[in-house]
Amino acid sequence: MNAPHDYHRLADPAALRTRFIAVRARTMALIAPLSAEDCGAQSMPDASPAKWHAAHTTWFFETFILEPFEAGFRAHHPAFRMLFNSYYNGVGDKHERAQRGLLTRPAHADVLAYRADVDARVLALMASDRDTASECTGLIALGLQHEQQHQELIVTDMKHLLWMNPLKPVYGPMPGIDSVPPVQDVSQWLSFEAGIVMIGHDADSFSFDNEAPRHRQFVEGFSLASRLVTNGEYRAFIEDGGYADPSFWLSEGWDWVNAHGLSQPLYWHHDSECGWQEFTLCGMQQIEPDAALTHVAYFEAEAYARWAGARLPTEAEWESAVAGSEGRQGAVLSQLDDTCWQWTSSSYAPYPGYVPQPGALGEYNGKFMVNQYVLRGGSRATPAGHSRVTYRNFFPATARWQFSGIRLARSSSAA
Amino acid sequence: MNAPHDYHRLADPAALRTRFIAVRARTMALIAPLSAEDCGAQSMPDASPAKWHAAHTTWFFETFILEPFEAGFRAHHPAFRMLFNSYYNGVGDKHERAQRGLLTRPAHADVLAYRADVDARVLALMASDRDTASECTGLIALGLQHEQQHQELIVTDMKHLLWMNPLKPVYGPMPGIDSVPPVQDVSQWLSFEAGIVMIGHDADSFSFDNEAPRHRQFVEGFSLASRLVTNGEYRAFIEDGGYADPSFWLSEGWDWVNAHGLSQPLYWHHDSECGWQEFTLCGMQQIEPDAALTHVAYFEAEAYARWAGARLPTEAEWESAVAGSEGRQGAVLSQLDDTCWQWTSSSYAPYPGYVPQPGALGEYNGKFMVNQYVLRGGSRATPAGHSRVTYRNFFPATARWQFSGIRLARSSSAA
Amino acid sequence: MNAPHDYHRLADPAALRTRFIAVRARTMALIAPLSAEDCGAQSMPDASPAKWHAAHTTWFFETFILEPFEAGFRAHHPAFRMLFNSYYNGVGDKHERAQRGLLTRPAHADVLAYRADVDARVLALMASDRDTASECTGLIALGLQHEQQHQELIVTDMKHLLWMNPLKPVYGPMPGIDSVPPVQDVSQWLSFEAGIVMIGHDADSFSFDNEAPRHRQFVEGFSLASRLVTNGEYRAFIEDGGYADPSFWLSEGWDWVNAHGLSQPLYWHHDSECGWQEFTLCGMQQIEPDAALTHVAYFEAEAYARWAGARLPTEAEWESAVAGSEGRQGAVLSQLDDTCWQWTSSSYAPYPGYVPQPGALGEYNGKFMVNQYVLRGGSRATPAGHSRVTYRNFFPATARWQFSGIRLARSSSAA
Amino acid sequence: MNAPHDYHRLADPAALRTRFIAVRARTMALIAPLSAEDCGAQSMPDASPAKWHAAHTTWFFETFILEPFEAGFRAHHPAFRMLFNSYYNGVGDKHERAQRGLLTRPAHADVLAYRADVDARVLALMASDRDTASECTGLIALGLQHEQQHQELIVTDMKHLLWMNPLKPVYGPMPGIDSVPPVQDVSQWLSFEAGIVMIGHDADSFSFDNEAPRHRQFVEGFSLASRLVTNGEYRAFIEDGGYADPSFWLSEGWDWVNAHGLSQPLYWHHDSECGWQEFTLCGMQQIEPDAALTHVAYFEAEAYARWAGARLPTEAEWESAVAGSEGRQGAVLSQLDDTCWQWTSSSYAPYPGYVPQPGALGEYNGKFMVNQYVLRGGSRATPAGHSRVTYRNFFPATARWQFSGIRLARSSSAA
Repeated sequence: MNAPHDYHRLADPAALRTRFIAVRARTMALIAPLSAEDCGAQSMPDASPAKWHAAHTTWFFETFILEPFEAGFRAHHPAFRMLFNSYYNGVGDKHERAQRGLLTRPAHADVLAYRADVDARVLALMASDRDTASECTGLIALGLQHEQQHQELIVTDMKHLLWMNPLKPVYGPMPGIDSVPPVQDVSQWLSFEAGIVMIGHDADSFSFDNEAPRHRQFVEGFSLASRLVTNGEYRAFIEDGGYADPSFWLSEGWDWVNAHGLSQPLYWHHDSECGWQEFTLCGMQQIEPDAALTHVAYFEAEAYARWAGARLPTEAEWESAVAGSEGRQGAVLSQLDDTCWQWTSSSYAPYPGYVPQPGALGEYNGKFMVNQYVLRGGSRATPAGHSRVTYRNFFPATARWQFSGIRLARSSSAA
Repeated sequence: MNAPHDYHRLADPAALRTRFIAVRARTMALIAPLSAEDCGAQSMPDASPAKWHAAHTTWFFETFILEPFEAGFRAHHPAFRMLFNSYYNGVGDKHERAQRGLLTRPAHADVLAYRADVDARVLALMASDRDTASECTGLIALGLQHEQQHQELIVTDMKHLLWMNPLKPVYGPMPGIDSVPPVQDVSQWLSFEAGIVMIGHDADSFSFDNEAPRHRQFVEGFSLASRLVTNGEYRAFIEDGGYADPSFWLSEGWDWVNAHGLSQPLYWHHDSECGWQEFTLCGMQQIEPDAALTHVAYFEAEAYARWAGARLPTEAEWESAVAGSEGRQGAVLSQLDDTCWQWTSSSYAPYPGYVPQPGALGEYNGKFMVNQYVLRGGSRATPAGHSRVTYRNFFPATARWQFSGIRLARSSSAA
Repeated sequence: MNAPHDYHRLADPAALRTRFIAVRARTMALIAPLSAEDCGAQSMPDASPAKWHAAHTTWFFETFILEPFEAGFRAHHPAFRMLFNSYYNGVGDKHERAQRGLLTRPAHADVLAYRADVDARVLALMASDRDTASECTGLIALGLQHEQQHQELIVTDMKHLLWMNPLKPVYGPMPGIDSVPPVQDVSQWLSFEAGIVMIGHDADSFSFDNEAPRHRQFVEGFSLASRLVTNGEYRAFIEDGGYADPSFWLSEGWDWVNAHGLSQPLYWHHDSECGWQEFTLCGMQQIEPDAALTHVAYFEAEAYARWAGARLPTEAEWESAVAGSEGRQGAVLSQLDDTCWQWTSSSYAPYPGYVPQPGALGEYNGKFMVNQYVLRGGSRATPAGHSRVTYRNFFPATARWQFSGIRLARSSSAA
Repeated sequence: MNAPHDYHRLADPAALRTRFIAVRARTMALIAPLSAEDCGAQSMPDASPAKWHAAHTTWFFETFILEPFEAGFRAHHPAFRMLFNSYYNGVGDKHERAQRGLLTRPAHADVLAYRADVDARVLALMASDRDTASECTGLIALGLQHEQQHQELIVTDMKHLLWMNPLKPVYGPMPGIDSVPPVQDVSQWLSFEAGIVMIGHDADSFSFDNEAPRHRQFVEGFSLASRLVTNGEYRAFIEDGGYADPSFWLSEGWDWVNAHGLSQPLYWHHDSECGWQEFTLCGMQQIEPDAALTHVAYFEAEAYARWAGARLPTEAEWESAVAGSEGRQGAVLSQLDDTCWQWTSSSYAPYPGYVPQPGALGEYNGKFMVNQYVLRGGSRATPAGHSRVTYRNFFPATARWQFSGIRLARSSSAA
């Protein structure tokens, strides 16, 4: 116990091959509606060009699978080792993050060729002698999880880029990803008893190191909302002067609201002619009051909760409630992982006994455990099968370009 | 239970009167060695002029005790209501924090007169009819705790101001406050069992609202260092390249180190002629290797701990260990509250069931619960009797001008 | 006299048609070696994407020729009116300059179609009834001059973009534009007598409004260097500690050097392996000591001149010397308009009697006449026939990405 | 001719002694109404504390007179050599400008003692052997001119500090300095013929190096307004939407107006209760419509002039008109040097043949000759006898805290 997290776990080779092909193909499908120009631009330092995502995910396989395991390894292009390193100091130099949008060379086509080359070589490696193949299955599985994370970022980063364009253009036909299905349900409070709960990941199946180890936490009695906060509910907060009254806000959040002159969620727009609209991957749309609110920062989520007489859940509450509500009678928790990530009040921190893997892969999660807040669940942009109940997403308290929404909680004694 | 925190608690009126006189006098003693010029300057937006501290603590009594309880209340000076409001939006406008050093009027002498006037009126109120007096004793006690917090800030803020002066001048004769007594002891690991612990404040005695309610937490087995990290130990980290190796640092901490070109704690200075020196309230002094390190940021504390193969304690570990080690045999925890505040790995967050007081006093603590880290214990600059085992101090991860040091922890299973 | 500058001058319609086709084609030739990705990126707020230049020059014709003169005018695309307005407040809204690199839509191909449409319509207008055609010939000539200015910016802006790429890629085969032919000549001082000179433009031929009116200035006796400062000469300045000695620099220049850690011209690079190299449109090249120095800021030019015991010429000196040296015996002025723009010591200001055209075209030059310095001559990237002896180029004192070099001057009495 | 400017000129020793005592005493009189706290604060990086001015002017005498000429010179305090050096790189290190307000030590009283010591030693030197005394009279005269410049800055910097204080306090009884006498006169246009004029200083009397050499300039015919623009005239510009219409503004000025949300001169304030008021050294006062406008930036002066159908004069126009209008019949130029400095359209640049003195004194003026604009005349805060017709004051185009106003000009041909 408390050994470093080990990504070198066995996986079924045949299934892995199928999965590798499918995941890699999905990235291609995501960028298919986009031009090379679209894929090259970077709208802000926090976002990356789609081309960069496509290359970086390939770099990950080249660096962590091909380089150590391929006989006679040679880099696809020596400069790509630096250009497409995101943040792994243990691997060497990296290109300045805010300048990713200036990499017009290598060309989009060169990145696609990079993908094809690395794909072929990884597949060859998987087909090679049993020992090598089995040694790297865990890492290949990690690479696919990593690529799925970047698939969600392709969507969020491109959405932000298109929003910055005064034409408010359409990403392309993306059924399901950015539709906003209304919910009819009245939100209900599901209550949970105080007690010691187990959270975190401990099974043989894949998880990121930040989900482990599975461990005990004591949780006081609490209630959790059965569904997410809707656009209509949030609009009531706005119309009640939510963005103008400091008593709803954390002090730093209030400064942030005023420094940026904020008065609504990221993609919302209001004018007297069209009323309330929001930008989606299908362009500007009327806001659907009964659909789940998304694209709010932690500060906004926290302020809304205070206005609503509630609070955000901790991640232990969220995880134990979701795990514990299975098979329960009566009201159920909905919109768990298919709508929006849900801000928790938990600062992103290591679990007791957390030990990152040695080497560069240890940089995957651990070094970001400060000044960020955990989001749980999953969003409409999360690849199917990628998230799980123990999954810990995390962003700074000001991040709004992710598909992030609100599920309310209450302390039982407050009822 | 889970009622809002109530500062209106009974206290012994006679003792309170004595205490009021003593605490208010100590502020005067702290600024006595300083000139009006010294007291007026502000070295950075995070720090305030000593004059402002002297006035703001007085404003607190005027606003929260005299205004609601004094018959026929009239403000000492109408403009002071705004000039010396720190951050209470519920009370009205406030002066721009970064411009506190420009308030050369009112003069230093005017602020002393403000103190004298409010002192006399509060003492008169305490001597007035029983009902009124008893109604405000809790608030007066809060005002005194508040003033003690600012007494520590007077010391840290003036230290920073004097450090910014190329002359590195001496604050004045301050025996005890900034001396650095060496410790002879080898640090030992005290181990604690896993289990549910109670932390937080629940007694009849005074506490800030952020210490309540007392509640249960589950803590895994851990060990805590018997004493603080010393200057000599930290120097070994520096000499081992601690500030040049990203693998020791949180990603945001590494960016911070490089953006500011940091290579040592705040007040340290090294040159070939004098070797390692540090700035103290008595001027530049040789660094004492066996004395406790102080003036490090959370980022530095966290990096040092990783370098040392350990980690920072959580606040639940810290509090339960300190509470639980009383009367224990063998090694004991030393340097708890008389040397340096000790960074914990806990993000500053509300305890389960936390409900701030309604009104402006609810702004005292709650609205700062984001992007800050908890420090426990107390420092050489903390007024005697001010801190306690449940006390939660908090600062951003980059703050270094407080008397902040490091106590290491380890997970038991990691041993 | 002193009427507003009038761009509506007669030009030979047939010649103008030929010229229109040629100038418009040259823009296409300049971007031909570039991909759509290359053309879309913006390396800094001062630079623009090549796609934007291609569109904005087209917008100019659409706005100032088609809109007022074409019967039944309809905008090619309503949004382009705002997207590709650079700075003409009189024309309406404009897109944020620093975000030009985010306009992935309209696509590169859409911009080419915009060009083709406007080309056809302008040509049709020129072929239409005599009155209309003659009314707009002056404006079409202005539009072509404007496009030539942007042709030079396409080269400088793309050079900067490619430089920001760690691969230091090649623009493409561009014979002549960025070659650096060495000069063999020793620089000589050509002296000129004190007296009243006439400078500025007053002929029937085209000029920008900032070149007029032609007027008298008194110039004291001076000497001008026959050729530009070479790379080798500037390297001697560097090696003499030029970037480390404040006595050579203007105070603001010295702050600029230190704030950005500068120690060489923009595209120079030095390492122990390759020695001194510079980035060109053909990639990294060894520096040719006898070739003219380029890509220095006004601050660098001014500091170099002081180090060299000389100074920069005023624009009156430059213009009168060039005009007056024609047909002169002996040493001649070389490298006037085919190598680098030459910084003068003259702040960009209106000539006596300057009156800009009314309306939006009056914004072309006049509103930039502050905190910029005049450059004279022309560069290897200036389209043939675009510049003339009265031409006034201008940039802030820190601009280095233009092809800007140094011609020295001396006051006669200082000899 | 064209020798370096030489400040070592003869002056009458007896008169100089009297003058030394008087000028040094005036600085003391200026700070007499202020507390040590007032004198220590710095309201912005462009301004300095009055204490710093009092010390720096003393440092100037210590550095440029005592150090080279006093037998057995010893510094008053070694650290003062660095603390009170403003910008002379040739003299050694200097304290960070923006941190002058943090120098609470040395105390105000220590600076007064520094003044007294240096005063006594300079007077002793003046009384010493004839050769030494005569050698340094020119430098002492320079030191007194320098001190007078800082006397004006004490007034402007303290005015800005007091303005930053929400109490808008009164400097003290300062008859004459900040009163705003109304003018009754209608402004008239005085016209001047085109021709060669002589400007600059060439006499035996004192001047700064930037006023020399006296030289020829050709000036086209122009007219100059007989008096300054009044508050009432400027208010008409405001009420006509002057701050909301980009067509009046230089492009950089328009950006500046919008970035800072400007809508009026620096010290003006408008509310529905009090109407238009302005802050003066005597506190807030009603604006006097017939008094001269002051505290406008170059950008505002330039925009106002365009709105008024006029322009700012060049410095050659200003100087030649003032010199040439003496003894003239009819309308005269008023408010030349006793009201406000007058922005000219001339960028601050060296005169033809300008050669600064070698050594540190050469840094006095020359190194600031970029991105600043010349002001001519003098203000109500300029010490009597300090300015002259050749005097060149200079500030960046955004500076507003000086007593700077507007005198209009017109090109003759525009009439």
